[in-house]
Amino acid sequence: MIQVIKIGGKLVENDDILNRLSDELSIAYPNCVLIHGGGSMAGQLASRLGIETRMHEGRRITDKETLEVVVMAYAGLANKKIVAKLQAKGVSACGLSGCDMGVVQAHKREVKDIDWGFVGDVDQVNAEALKDLLDRKVMPVLSAITCSPDGQLLNTNADSVAGAVAIALSKLCDIELVFCFDKPGVLLDVNDDSSLIPTLDAEKYKAYLAQGVIHSGMMPKLENAFKTIAAGVKSVRLTSPENLSGGTVIK
Amino acid sequence: MIQVIKIGGKLVENDDILNRLSDELSIAYPNCVLIHGGGSMAGQLASRLGIETRMHEGRRITDKETLEVVVMAYAGLANKKIVAKLQAKGVSACGLSGCDMGVVQAHKREVKDIDWGFVGDVDQVNAEALKDLLDRKVMPVLSAITCSPDGQLLNTNADSVAGAVAIALSKLCDIELVFCFDKPGVLLDVNDDSSLIPTLDAEKYKAYLAQGVIHSGMMPKLENAFKTIAAGVKSVRLTSPENLSGGTVIK
Repeated sequence: MIQVIKIGGKLVENDDILNRLSDELSIAYPNCVLIHGGGSMAGQLASRLGIETRMHEGRRITDKETLEVVVMAYAGLANKKIVAKLQAKGVSACGLSGCDMGVVQAHKREVKDIDWGFVGDVDQVNAEALKDLLDRKVMPVLSAITCSPDGQLLNTNADSVAGAVAIALSKLCDIELVFCFDKPGVLLDVNDDSSLIPTLDAEKYKAYLAQGVIHSGMMPKLENAFKTIAAGVKSVRLTSPENLSGGTVIK
Repeated sequence: MIQVIKIGGKLVENDDILNRLSDELSIAYPNCVLIHGGGSMAGQLASRLGIETRMHEGRRITDKETLEVVVMAYAGLANKKIVAKLQAKGVSACGLSGCDMGVVQAHKREVKDIDWGFVGDVDQVNAEALKDLLDRKVMPVLSAITCSPDGQLLNTNADSVAGAVAIALSKLCDIELVFCFDKPGVLLDVNDDSSLIPTLDAEKYKAYLAQGVIHSGMMPKLENAFKTIAAGVKSVRLTSPENLSGGTVIK
């Protein structure tokens, strides 16, 4: 089983967490692909450069200047920091963005109610190129920057990239998609880490929903997990970056 | 014959030149490796961030903040701009820095008369990883950021990286090392582009030196070229980025 692991940028910026994550990854190596955002690095850089950050529904509107910032922060600093850390732990990692070997092709999001600027929606994943690296014991470390066929770099949601990569790779091998976040998994009581639900399937999920015990913030994550499984991924795991074999497994 | 092509960052920043270079590279593809600096991008970014640029003998002293700037500019923006441009021309390019798959391992330069900060000197090249990409028709596009075995990113001279990569690859296949610069090649008269010397060997070079017709600025480049050839590289070419099969060939 190959794990496609998505980690939020906020977690990458914390040196302690990055250290513990690299330890976990060196255990999972060579059977995983890491996908990351750049979290507040881009925001911080933009603000230092005097570029206004415009968000809509929690997502970044990406004009030309912001795109350069995002490429520098995600594909540059965040990506190379993670790769260097993994190399030092004996993991042969290869940093990529979606443009490299056409790994994640996207198109610029159409302007409808809102102009997102240089934001991409994923069209296609070059799963063969990723599988090729895995076969040669290289761990792909992918930043959520994608590229259109005409060479336009695009800022893309890291969760969407992770989902698309997991589904595309699932045609070639068994895949578990792992979302790392700041909770140990799906909890019955958000304030009690010991109330972790270790496994969840569609039936159990419906029962929990009916009982009203699933926190509303978790619902989109879980709905997405079931869609991803329907598309061919074996399981989806929600866990903390310190425990890649723990948390909640959704099947 | 595989060409290892080094292009200065200043040339990469010029969209016209980058366009013409990508056309040339799509002809040379899949038989080349591109190595680039980031030119004034890093300086511009540093100055916008209010980070003082300190140079010594024309080279950048790299403190912690400057290292982050250099990684963002070279491994982030410059690298992905080039790769996206190549992808749009049908070239399967893969952007790399020295840390990726341990492609270029270096050590932090020792503090002697001057503390260069996070500047690296190359120890080792993972030529097999590069050859592997070439065999799969992928063009490696390498920024001059390297990594120490303990995971420290290091700012490294792009000419030195290109030389080390060419020599390491020459153990696996025939290599021509190409330096792109803003002249059509080695000129007998710096002000007359038609005075190009098409080929040069050690004997001819000595004769030109004796006649005093080689411009002093060219001498270090030529001395280096002969050293690289002595180390196993078949030929060194000095040319403009618009003419990768022209210029001066040194054998």
